[in-house]
Amino acid sequence: MHKRRKNETGWTSAQTLSEALPFIQRYTGSTIVIKFGGNAMGDEVLTQKFAHDVVLLKQFGLRPVIVHGGGPQIGSMLEKLDIKSEFVDGLRVSDMETVGIAEMVLSGAINKSIVQAINQAGGRAVGLSGKDANLITANAKDAKLGFTGTPIATDISVIDVLTAADPGFIPVISPISGGAAGESFNVNADTAAGVLAGALGASRLMLLTDIEGVMDKDKNLLTNLSVEDALGLIKDGTAKGGMIPKLTTATDAVKSGVEAVVILDGRRAHGLLVELFTDQGAGTLIR
Amino acid sequence: MHKRRKNETGWTSAQTLSEALPFIQRYTGSTIVIKFGGNAMGDEVLTQKFAHDVVLLKQFGLRPVIVHGGGPQIGSMLEKLDIKSEFVDGLRVSDMETVGIAEMVLSGAINKSIVQAINQAGGRAVGLSGKDANLITANAKDAKLGFTGTPIATDISVIDVLTAADPGFIPVISPISGGAAGESFNVNADTAAGVLAGALGASRLMLLTDIEGVMDKDKNLLTNLSVEDALGLIKDGTAKGGMIPKLTTATDAVKSGVEAVVILDGRRAHGLLVELFTDQGAGTLIR
Amino acid sequence: MHKRRKNETGWTSAQTLSEALPFIQRYTGSTIVIKFGGNAMGDEVLTQKFAHDVVLLKQFGLRPVIVHGGGPQIGSMLEKLDIKSEFVDGLRVSDMETVGIAEMVLSGAINKSIVQAINQAGGRAVGLSGKDANLITANAKDAKLGFTGTPIATDISVIDVLTAADPGFIPVISPISGGAAGESFNVNADTAAGVLAGALGASRLMLLTDIEGVMDKDKNLLTNLSVEDALGLIKDGTAKGGMIPKLTTATDAVKSGVEAVVILDGRRAHGLLVELFTDQGAGTLIR
Amino acid sequence: MHKRRKNETGWTSAQTLSEALPFIQRYTGSTIVIKFGGNAMGDEVLTQKFAHDVVLLKQFGLRPVIVHGGGPQIGSMLEKLDIKSEFVDGLRVSDMETVGIAEMVLSGAINKSIVQAINQAGGRAVGLSGKDANLITANAKDAKLGFTGTPIATDISVIDVLTAADPGFIPVISPISGGAAGESFNVNADTAAGVLAGALGASRLMLLTDIEGVMDKDKNLLTNLSVEDALGLIKDGTAKGGMIPKLTTATDAVKSGVEAVVILDGRRAHGLLVELFTDQGAGTLIR
Amino acid sequence: MHKRRKNETGWTSAQTLSEALPFIQRYTGSTIVIKFGGNAMGDEVLTQKFAHDVVLLKQFGLRPVIVHGGGPQIGSMLEKLDIKSEFVDGLRVSDMETVGIAEMVLSGAINKSIVQAINQAGGRAVGLSGKDANLITANAKDAKLGFTGTPIATDISVIDVLTAADPGFIPVISPISGGAAGESFNVNADTAAGVLAGALGASRLMLLTDIEGVMDKDKNLLTNLSVEDALGLIKDGTAKGGMIPKLTTATDAVKSGVEAVVILDGRRAHGLLVELFTDQGAGTLIR
Amino acid sequence: MHKRRKNETGWTSAQTLSEALPFIQRYTGSTIVIKFGGNAMGDEVLTQKFAHDVVLLKQFGLRPVIVHGGGPQIGSMLEKLDIKSEFVDGLRVSDMETVGIAEMVLSGAINKSIVQAINQAGGRAVGLSGKDANLITANAKDAKLGFTGTPIATDISVIDVLTAADPGFIPVISPISGGAAGESFNVNADTAAGVLAGALGASRLMLLTDIEGVMDKDKNLLTNLSVEDALGLIKDGTAKGGMIPKLTTATDAVKSGVEAVVILDGRRAHGLLVELFTDQGAGTLIR
Repeated sequence: MHKRRKNETGWTSAQTLSEALPFIQRYTGSTIVIKFGGNAMGDEVLTQKFAHDVVLLKQFGLRPVIVHGGGPQIGSMLEKLDIKSEFVDGLRVSDMETVGIAEMVLSGAINKSIVQAINQAGGRAVGLSGKDANLITANAKDAKLGFTGTPIATDISVIDVLTAADPGFIPVISPISGGAAGESFNVNADTAAGVLAGALGASRLMLLTDIEGVMDKDKNLLTNLSVEDALGLIKDGTAKGGMIPKLTTATDAVKSGVEAVVILDGRRAHGLLVELFTDQGAGTLIR
Repeated sequence: MHKRRKNETGWTSAQTLSEALPFIQRYTGSTIVIKFGGNAMGDEVLTQKFAHDVVLLKQFGLRPVIVHGGGPQIGSMLEKLDIKSEFVDGLRVSDMETVGIAEMVLSGAINKSIVQAINQAGGRAVGLSGKDANLITANAKDAKLGFTGTPIATDISVIDVLTAADPGFIPVISPISGGAAGESFNVNADTAAGVLAGALGASRLMLLTDIEGVMDKDKNLLTNLSVEDALGLIKDGTAKGGMIPKLTTATDAVKSGVEAVVILDGRRAHGLLVELFTDQGAGTLIR
Repeated sequence: MHKRRKNETGWTSAQTLSEALPFIQRYTGSTIVIKFGGNAMGDEVLTQKFAHDVVLLKQFGLRPVIVHGGGPQIGSMLEKLDIKSEFVDGLRVSDMETVGIAEMVLSGAINKSIVQAINQAGGRAVGLSGKDANLITANAKDAKLGFTGTPIATDISVIDVLTAADPGFIPVISPISGGAAGESFNVNADTAAGVLAGALGASRLMLLTDIEGVMDKDKNLLTNLSVEDALGLIKDGTAKGGMIPKLTTATDAVKSGVEAVVILDGRRAHGLLVELFTDQGAGTLIR
Repeated sequence: MHKRRKNETGWTSAQTLSEALPFIQRYTGSTIVIKFGGNAMGDEVLTQKFAHDVVLLKQFGLRPVIVHGGGPQIGSMLEKLDIKSEFVDGLRVSDMETVGIAEMVLSGAINKSIVQAINQAGGRAVGLSGKDANLITANAKDAKLGFTGTPIATDISVIDVLTAADPGFIPVISPISGGAAGESFNVNADTAAGVLAGALGASRLMLLTDIEGVMDKDKNLLTNLSVEDALGLIKDGTAKGGMIPKLTTATDAVKSGVEAVVILDGRRAHGLLVELFTDQGAGTLIR
Repeated sequence: MHKRRKNETGWTSAQTLSEALPFIQRYTGSTIVIKFGGNAMGDEVLTQKFAHDVVLLKQFGLRPVIVHGGGPQIGSMLEKLDIKSEFVDGLRVSDMETVGIAEMVLSGAINKSIVQAINQAGGRAVGLSGKDANLITANAKDAKLGFTGTPIATDISVIDVLTAADPGFIPVISPISGGAAGESFNVNADTAAGVLAGALGASRLMLLTDIEGVMDKDKNLLTNLSVEDALGLIKDGTAKGGMIPKLTTATDAVKSGVEAVVILDGRRAHGLLVELFTDQGAGTLIR
Repeated sequence: MHKRRKNETGWTSAQTLSEALPFIQRYTGSTIVIKFGGNAMGDEVLTQKFAHDVVLLKQFGLRPVIVHGGGPQIGSMLEKLDIKSEFVDGLRVSDMETVGIAEMVLSGAINKSIVQAINQAGGRAVGLSGKDANLITANAKDAKLGFTGTPIATDISVIDVLTAADPGFIPVISPISGGAAGESFNVNADTAAGVLAGALGASRLMLLTDIEGVMDKDKNLLTNLSVEDALGLIKDGTAKGGMIPKLTTATDAVKSGVEAVVILDGRRAHGLLVELFTDQGAGTLIR
């Protein structure tokens, strides 16, 4: 016959949950492709919170599909092994040894650590790479860059089977993909996320990055962009460096049928939830 | 190219949603039978919030089943029609005219207003009574009380069909039930909720009332009771009046396989969410 | 070791059953929407026979869907409550109180009594109203007539789920429907039956009335009408009074895809069976 | 705008259909194994009526399974081919040539003519023999009788697949069965019907014969027998000749789980319907 | 603790199995209609090997459907019964007695012997004729030829149900078919196989014959023919006698959607396997 | 109009395929767990042939599940990275860095190369590790050996979902598994294969090794062992070194319900096929 101290915390939380309903309803049954990468991926606490949020999305009736990168970790391993990369026009050449190391790091180490974090949070994650069940078939992007790949075909049947199971699994995907002749190709994770989002008819492609979103010339966050806006930012030089391929991935994804793309900050916990389930939103939405 | 003012409301909400995950996971796929009644039912704003919370439960993967009463509304209609009730041992006798009015009010007016509130909140509610698809078969509780009924059989197949549909429906049940000879019986809503919770193998039976929960002799809320505790409170006179049949319903439900029963205050919005999805809890849990 | 007296009754019955086969085969799997109303609804024996015939249709492999009215019972309850109705152009104005009484009588009393009669006959009926699962959404037919409604949308998913179950349920529908803002609308039962028959792709819409069928100027029964014939009868004044909206409902239903509409006498038992399963037919068929 | 002469035939028929409902409900979903044989099988009109009644059973929601014999037709073919049978203890010896002729007549000619009659009546019949999908495996009943077989195993999976299809097929079965070494065995049709009825958990095994049913010593029809009664009739010599194996088949079937066996007259049309769907009954019921 | 003598037989076999993989993959899930007939059908050892190969096809994931003829066996039975056939323009007239004998021989004797051979080899065969479930409806090919039939409609639903079961059944089909008025028609087995292959969307129609395949004027085997080639061989007189209707069946089948037709020698065991699963091929392929 | 040279190769192959039927039938629908490892794994041609054989098993209706090791490749990577392992009692201690490298090599490099080889052979392989969907949960085998793990629980639901899809996927499993606290454990591949075979109710666990099988004291191959025989060989010292844990895995697997375990030579192509589909067998069978 326990008694309870009165307090109001629970009631405030309940109010918040209640307010999330219309947002959750909007995404029921929708596929949300999330590119996880950047500094968040190297931070254990952020990774755990990310995994927790992904499980929440699944619990709320959405279908999250995770794609991850891992550039810094690959670089670090190449360094440990004392493998020097060649560069052509400022871009790293992926020779066979390099892509082999990239595969070990991405499909082996990083992929399974994300899987494990999601499972620790109560989800049921399954790690895949572009090679599994021919998820992504690639070929060389540019002969000079070696085994740097560009997707030429997707077969999403394994994702369909896994997410349609009851209760469903959460696919976690490394972008290393196979070529027609059995080669391995290192595909950019944003690009891989983009083509999968298109093939899956995703409602959202969410690109987690290391900045708050797309900025204008005065470093103010732009919250809503049309495809034309985004292309304009590239053209007029406002978008620079790594933001250019992100904007290209975003506009390509929208053109291939993804409802909207969000570029948001992965360094702050729960950005996914703020974007999807509150009217505040987070980062930059391109549609 | 909209820009956004910075504020933190969304981030706080996201944090709250995130914290609810382990609670939601605990109830995934569980049937939650909720008796809606008392003053809340007469209050339009509280009814809307209740409906909203029920839809949230459904969205979170639970299977809510609503049972409602409506004593005051029946009394008010009997008064308008100038029908005087006979009383035996202080209990109202339900003659055929009275049970007919009760059916109109419960199965017609109240049932459909709850259905409509849930549908307005984005759910898909279906109103039923004990008569539909032989959900509850009753007979006379006591010959002297006329058509006041006690359940003698349940057939939950229509609830199974409705909740198993994809996306599922939310059953809203009036306790007026049929007898073997085609009579109508007025079954107490708590009792109806209790037998349905047992037949459905519910995880929780939640009885919304007009007090905070079960109180000890000093008017302090008791938060956790065993079946023995509950029966002791009846025996030693601590539980009085309307609380006695509620405790009896609760202990019967636990004995018939319901995991736990919660008696909580329906006059305050979001009590269901506080009880199910926060570690604060609300009201009195009997198991 | 019982012995049996010889007689021929059983053999004659068997011959009759045998002759019904080609008629039954014609309707296997077809949806038959039946508007039950008029004097039959107030007669307990006729209601029981009607319920019995509906169960027979189900047993023979048809999908009966019942829609009922209840004008006289509403009038009688309004009278008991001493509620006076306003009239505009000879039509009753449904104010909020009136539509509330109509809902209690239709969705509460009458609906459940039909459900119970069908269940007594061995069927499994489920009572619904236009509000349940948003079956019919209505708005005001004419601002001057208050909450008298006209259907603007249907969502037949709950009927599909209930009739597709194995063994299937028999839906019994009260025409009181919800509005977009949560209002209640009193929709004419013939009209409701007509729009549902269209949405369900029914083979037959059967309107049970208090006369034998459509009559010509000499009071002879017309057994077969084309849509043009029916519209002609309205135009040339042969059809009068309550027959005009019935013919309009019938022609609208045929235009929306119902194979044929039958207007027949509900005051004589087994008219449904005569129409569907014998070559005699009953009432007036419009196609 | 056709008009109709008034008459009452349709209304009488409707009354009869209506009265059949409780009988039909009793057998919904039940398997009814019917042994078709004797003089009825040689009469084209009776065969057509039989086929018609079988389709009616299917339409009413029962699962008819037909087993047929064909002794006279085999005899006639053996005669045409001038094949003389050997006899041992008064029983015909089935040598390989004889069983081959029996198979042609039963599985070829008679089986397909019944299939065709049912299809002409609007059913979907599929002819099978004991050999198909190993429906019945047999071995020699008595070494001296050659290829006269007795069932030793059944595999009803093909019947389950065919009757569970939607709409379902009606299996028509010739009793010629295969042996473990690839031989053909001539199994008695009553016996085959009995073992299949047991394996299918049939509600009724109906044996159509050339007499009215089981008679007592004074030639009065016995309408109800217990298994003990039936065995007593054999023991005390009341049952004679061909009735003895029929009663043995019946009592064996009841022991293996068939609810009841009916021995009835196949020479009069619609006996199946009289027995199943009227309270008069036909023939002798053993349970 | 058995020990084993070393030898290499198993390893050679494994190598062969391994090499068959790409061929098997090509036909996974494909329907293969096989006309079994000619001398092979009269040879018990060849029939067993044929049955064995059919089961292997099923095991490899193909869907074999067998159609058989039986001309010589019919002739022999007609002779035994001393039935003389009339001839018109050199073609046998099928009177009612003759088609009755043909049905007994084909649907009774031959059909069930093939069924049994397949079952002995571990398959689950079900024998059907054109009459079962209205598989083939025929009418008279030429009034002068009596009940010699030509297919006018097919209903392949029973084949779909049987082959879709898990594990699936192997249909074995006698070409005797029903007419609209309940007659029996003797349909040529090649023709029946052709129309079924078209209706089933078969990948291969394989016609087993008594010669090696289609020959050129110098008696050399032609291994690949286009439809034009095949029609040319008829036109220029290279194809003679029984080869003409075979080529016509083949070209009709290709036109109705069958991917390819193979005319091959049924007198040599395992021709089906050579054709389907080796790069050698057997007989003549027409596409 | 191609012509073909006569030769007999195809006919010999067909004969071999035909003879494999009874062996294939025996394993239809059975799960075959195959541990791939040793020298074969380092040999590209052998890996391709292995992949090809696995696809053949799938095509023949078996359910292959692959588990792989990779000791030499891990050692080679540790060497490249200049990581020195500690040894306790002659066993390598897996510290956190070592198990991290092991995961990269096993779950990243080797797993995906086998997946790719199977896909190149026309299969649809999906690479998993013990971590995915909590396939294997492990804890420390011995505190002194660090993150060397022993399985304590399995959850085979992801394998069931993948192999039950139509057409099914082939799971390829790396033995690196997760611990309850989120650690990584290096589980021995034979052990992992053994517990999965038990959990899956496998018909065969096939351990590919670098010797011909289990030898007696005179170096003769033992082809059949009982569990007692196998334990005896350990006890009497006949089994030495790496063979001891293999025999322990085998006897444990048989005790947990695996029908039989085969230890066979992975260095020779097609051993799987010889063992499963010929009567010669390969290696040592323990049951």
